[in-house]
Amino acid sequence: MKFVDKSCEEFVQELASKAAVPGGGGAAALVGAIGAALGSMVCNLTSGKKKYAQYEEDIQRILAKANEMKQDLLKMVDDDAENFLPLSKAYGMPAGTEEEKRIKEETMEMALKKACQVPVDIVKTSYNAIKLHAELVDKGSRLAISDVGVGVQCLRAALLGGMLNVTININAIKDKE
Amino acid sequence: MKFVDKSCEEFVQELASKAAVPGGGGAAALVGAIGAALGSMVCNLTSGKKKYAQYEEDIQRILAKANEMKQDLLKMVDDDAENFLPLSKAYGMPAGTEEEKRIKEETMEMALKKACQVPVDIVKTSYNAIKLHAELVDKGSRLAISDVGVGVQCLRAALLGGMLNVTININAIKDKE
Repeated sequence: MKFVDKSCEEFVQELASKAAVPGGGGAAALVGAIGAALGSMVCNLTSGKKKYAQYEEDIQRILAKANEMKQDLLKMVDDDAENFLPLSKAYGMPAGTEEEKRIKEETMEMALKKACQVPVDIVKTSYNAIKLHAELVDKGSRLAISDVGVGVQCLRAALLGGMLNVTININAIKDKE
Repeated sequence: MKFVDKSCEEFVQELASKAAVPGGGGAAALVGAIGAALGSMVCNLTSGKKKYAQYEEDIQRILAKANEMKQDLLKMVDDDAENFLPLSKAYGMPAGTEEEKRIKEETMEMALKKACQVPVDIVKTSYNAIKLHAELVDKGSRLAISDVGVGVQCLRAALLGGMLNVTININAIKDKE
């Protein structure tokens, strides 16, 4: 079962447990999806309103992009869990003999690189979604201005959360190329 | 059906729609619950580890508090929706005659005050949860240090999100007492 198909309550409870996934990466992706969704919501609350008719075309463009980013970030919740599992298994590998140590080290290197992939995408997508929200400050309904702000804060948390996950894994990688 | 019982995917899609709830308040509460859950997770990953045995008592205390805050924030997702609905209805009331205007204004005042209640609690609980995370920086497992950071960022987003929801409603209230 995909994590995004679990109820919000279940997701939060499994996140709180010691289970390997979901972890900080999946949490960041979901918080990013919530942020992008708030951008879509502001577009949906603005579209069709006389007062904002001059921005209708912009609003439709922003809505299409925000929807796409929302879907991308939702997908990253499960992609991150999938990419993190090999690392979680590698941590538990034996390292008693020289041969075991060598195999563990090689496996860790590959797993660490894999674990960075989705967090990098979380950072990129959240950054782009924040730029979309900046446009909504001027073109979105004034009644929903606080929602633009909440959206940006969620996306900022997702961006920094993704960055922390890249950093902790990159620091552990020995191959600095 | 409660919002926290909906799947993460459904929650995000309903948030993106023009439906009155969930809105920025419910989103902030869920993001706060995710942040508190990351604190619980770090405790669960630290507890029982030899290296951190000296902190076991602290970790158990932090875990109990983080779990409580996580549950409180989860509850606020639906409480905020319930408190926001009267305001959403009041916006749509007729204001053609003087009498209608007076009734709408009175209803709005009550609804705006009600809509502030949960966001104030989101701010308070998120603030307390951030303080818990500060303790985890020193006492939590180093392997999960990035998760402490992601947790703080989520809670910061929840705190500021709650504050934005208080501000937008307070500014609309005429009774400044």
